[in-house]
Amino acid sequence: MPMPDLPYAPELSVSAWYNTPEPLTLEALRGRVVLLHAFQLLCPGCVAQSIPQVQRIERVFANTDLQVVGLHTVFEHHEAMSPVTLEAFLHEYRIGSPVGVDMADEQSPIPITMRRYAFRGTPSSVLIGRDGSILHQTFGVEEDLAVGARIATALSAARTSQ
Amino acid sequence: MPMPDLPYAPELSVSAWYNTPEPLTLEALRGRVVLLHAFQLLCPGCVAQSIPQVQRIERVFANTDLQVVGLHTVFEHHEAMSPVTLEAFLHEYRIGSPVGVDMADEQSPIPITMRRYAFRGTPSSVLIGRDGSILHQTFGVEEDLAVGARIATALSAARTSQ
Amino acid sequence: MPMPDLPYAPELSVSAWYNTPEPLTLEALRGRVVLLHAFQLLCPGCVAQSIPQVQRIERVFANTDLQVVGLHTVFEHHEAMSPVTLEAFLHEYRIGSPVGVDMADEQSPIPITMRRYAFRGTPSSVLIGRDGSILHQTFGVEEDLAVGARIATALSAARTSQ
Amino acid sequence: MPMPDLPYAPELSVSAWYNTPEPLTLEALRGRVVLLHAFQLLCPGCVAQSIPQVQRIERVFANTDLQVVGLHTVFEHHEAMSPVTLEAFLHEYRIGSPVGVDMADEQSPIPITMRRYAFRGTPSSVLIGRDGSILHQTFGVEEDLAVGARIATALSAARTSQ
Repeated sequence: MPMPDLPYAPELSVSAWYNTPEPLTLEALRGRVVLLHAFQLLCPGCVAQSIPQVQRIERVFANTDLQVVGLHTVFEHHEAMSPVTLEAFLHEYRIGSPVGVDMADEQSPIPITMRRYAFRGTPSSVLIGRDGSILHQTFGVEEDLAVGARIATALSAARTSQ
Repeated sequence: MPMPDLPYAPELSVSAWYNTPEPLTLEALRGRVVLLHAFQLLCPGCVAQSIPQVQRIERVFANTDLQVVGLHTVFEHHEAMSPVTLEAFLHEYRIGSPVGVDMADEQSPIPITMRRYAFRGTPSSVLIGRDGSILHQTFGVEEDLAVGARIATALSAARTSQ
Repeated sequence: MPMPDLPYAPELSVSAWYNTPEPLTLEALRGRVVLLHAFQLLCPGCVAQSIPQVQRIERVFANTDLQVVGLHTVFEHHEAMSPVTLEAFLHEYRIGSPVGVDMADEQSPIPITMRRYAFRGTPSSVLIGRDGSILHQTFGVEEDLAVGARIATALSAARTSQ
Repeated sequence: MPMPDLPYAPELSVSAWYNTPEPLTLEALRGRVVLLHAFQLLCPGCVAQSIPQVQRIERVFANTDLQVVGLHTVFEHHEAMSPVTLEAFLHEYRIGSPVGVDMADEQSPIPITMRRYAFRGTPSSVLIGRDGSILHQTFGVEEDLAVGARIATALSAARTSQ
């Protein structure tokens, strides 16, 4: 159960969405547990480790109200990872959950949402509680047992605790 | 939180203990979550999969009151898996948590505790709640995410719920 | 040692080269053993399996005259796998051996070299003997032991046998 | 092709054989390539790595005249790894190729053949050429590509070169 002083998860800033009929916002997801997964399609650690883990998470927690949200946070090789390449990537890797493109910033190679969360790189993950607070944020990939435990604990928090 | 009608975990019947100063009983462990892991030292699936998973579980949940209990349930090749071989096995595989030898039954190749739980073979695992009820029992190995989630949920049950 | 009636490896048709100061041709490589590796950067089996295997091959056979040649054979999602994306991909995956872009065909989504070899998809590999004959061609990934044995056998063929 | 000054492989000293109708000797195997694999049934590295690799080798080189010979070289926990345990182990791990028990030495915990080869521990492997010379000896497990290449090169040596 999130403590009152946990930081609130900043809102997403997204320029395009895939795999969702309409844009997602964390505000609208309030009341549910959200796993935000920041990746880049040319990031070897994302492709080999975090994306397969997120797909396992979706399968194992399919019967819960966990919402997985992918975020394509391009901070390098911008031309190489355009939306047309992302769309083909999502198709080839059979990624069916919602993915947003992190909003580019004209003043910086770091996109907007990535800066709001101060991600150190990709892959990064944020577990957001029912009340919108950040329960856990990590750079890299943690082991499945710990991740499963953390998500289950977040899910067990009463909806009324938000 | 265990439902009132969950079956209670039958007591262990053990002829020898390793890695513990004194014998363990489920009765004495009441109030804690217990992971009972039944294995045989010549079982390939145990050596390759369930024992490494149990060792990961011990590491990830080291700061909780989870108690892992190994049970050497020999139901075949009895002469091949004697206590002297088990002791060397525990040493070579660096298994430091308590392991009991399931009590042999003179009338059957199936040892006593194995029969009480109706294990279908090895590896088998039983997750026992704080109140002594069987929360989950499985033959084989389940994936880490699901196992981590299940243990975390069991641990989150209030101690007073027993 | 290649039999006289083995098919000769057709020449490469490449629109751009990476990781080589000048274009490669099989003709100029005659006398050496060549491993031709056809891949696409958005092909999951290439990224997870064949590219790591090719990198292991380069390491294990570093002291031989084996020449590894990558071929980016884009036959789908053409816009998604443009040269700018390939270049970033080679950088991120630390691919340092020569890679050619298979020449696009205006009449077909299948590029020229891919058609010459009748590749069934990606990843595909061709082992070419010192005399320019095709010793082995495969779609998918074969196990390391067999691949290592096949390359060693090709390398052991006398240079004068060409 | 073995050089004239390569050391000859010392003969095996074995107290019991499994999976062979009659005892094997290196002398009788002269003319064939032999892979000698020294292991202990309670050796984690053997069970997890070298035994599976030897089983892959047997499968990949099934159509050659390679002879795999297992050697149970017990140098510690002697009581724990008696023949009755070895026999059950071979059954459970589906090891079907010949395995000899290295002859115990009354004066030392190190068995006879292990001492002759100066093995540093288990797993150890020796690749023996058609002429009986030691082509390669290693402690631990090497990668499949290199192992496959080495065996193929040994097999390609003419039988008449012995």
